[in-house]
Amino acid sequence: MATKAPRRTAQRILDASLALFNRYGEPNVSTTLISSDLNISPGNLYYHFPAKEELVNALFDRYQKALIPLLAAATDIRNIEDAWFFIHSIFEIVWEYRFLYRDLNDLLSRNRLLESEIKDVILHKTSAFKSLLQGLQLSSALDITVEERQALAVHMVVILTWWLSYEYVRDPRNALEDANAQQSVLKGAVQLLRLLLPYLEAHERAHLQNLLKAYDTQGSESI
Amino acid sequence: MATKAPRRTAQRILDASLALFNRYGEPNVSTTLISSDLNISPGNLYYHFPAKEELVNALFDRYQKALIPLLAAATDIRNIEDAWFFIHSIFEIVWEYRFLYRDLNDLLSRNRLLESEIKDVILHKTSAFKSLLQGLQLSSALDITVEERQALAVHMVVILTWWLSYEYVRDPRNALEDANAQQSVLKGAVQLLRLLLPYLEAHERAHLQNLLKAYDTQGSESI
Repeated sequence: MATKAPRRTAQRILDASLALFNRYGEPNVSTTLISSDLNISPGNLYYHFPAKEELVNALFDRYQKALIPLLAAATDIRNIEDAWFFIHSIFEIVWEYRFLYRDLNDLLSRNRLLESEIKDVILHKTSAFKSLLQGLQLSSALDITVEERQALAVHMVVILTWWLSYEYVRDPRNALEDANAQQSVLKGAVQLLRLLLPYLEAHERAHLQNLLKAYDTQGSESI
Repeated sequence: MATKAPRRTAQRILDASLALFNRYGEPNVSTTLISSDLNISPGNLYYHFPAKEELVNALFDRYQKALIPLLAAATDIRNIEDAWFFIHSIFEIVWEYRFLYRDLNDLLSRNRLLESEIKDVILHKTSAFKSLLQGLQLSSALDITVEERQALAVHMVVILTWWLSYEYVRDPRNALEDANAQQSVLKGAVQLLRLLLPYLEAHERAHLQNLLKAYDTQGSESI
């Protein structure tokens, strides 16, 4: 048991940090706030994570371990139902680690690990979206040239990565609060998948339009 | 002359601040750095702008005075040539005030004026893009439903607002440097206008594809 205690404390610290970063933005959360939120001494926090950057890096590692295996599943997508499920799952991870997305540029300007790793995440996302589009084309769900596929994958990456920023700018006091999780993830997935509509064959397009309609009525106001 | 001197100093301070904010990011630039860059005393800077927030607000005011009249021109757009010129001009303003875009969420979380004003800028951009799409439809350059128009305008706003962030994440040390101005503005305009391609009628689509091809060869690597 003695060897397990520190690990559990480290996990608790990470969970609390993630919640605080997501809520207030990483630049606005000090290690003092984290230790007082956990009711532990600053020295105890320091023992596990000697700097805030190490907390950010440990959370980024968790984020990557959730995201990368999911992105690999893009190669199996053959219809719009698969694509919907895939995009929705990615947005759930984006939401879970939304502090990274909220202050992305600031974070990577201060953190060399993030500077190089986030670049790789963007490349990973882009190639996953290209695979998704290729899979849909293979099963004739979609008709698209190589050039269009490249441009569309970039559009998808930009919407995926900055959708929560768009929501945040429009409603900074509420957009990223826990209560909006489900709606925000849905709206992001809807907006991203709308990019595919003009390229889908008639049957898949009708199917996606039905999915979007069903989810639009769940989201309160229009996007 | 005596009454003009303070105004000129204020302008010089704003110009220098804009350059430093754009170069290093607003969170990384102190008023001490600004005064030393200008070779003026901190007291002189303080006399004109008692807080960094006031510098940001004055620059934001300049930005709005450049952007809002331009957005109003969206109602006159009738063909893809007009649209190209319009989008390119907007991206030039985005580039000129890129510090706002680089740390948008952080800035507005600390600044109540920006919190409300940036929301309005997003609304302004969205309605300008809707006007642009309406204008193209009026002249039969484009065929689109009301629902598609709404979704497409949002896609356009997200690409416009976060394109430089996409560039920055991919190459943080170079993307926002002055030397990349022309290429970055072009690539943003190209990527945004690609969103219109599937909706354009054949003649306008061929015209846009020719424009994109011409500019793609000017940009070095592919997007």
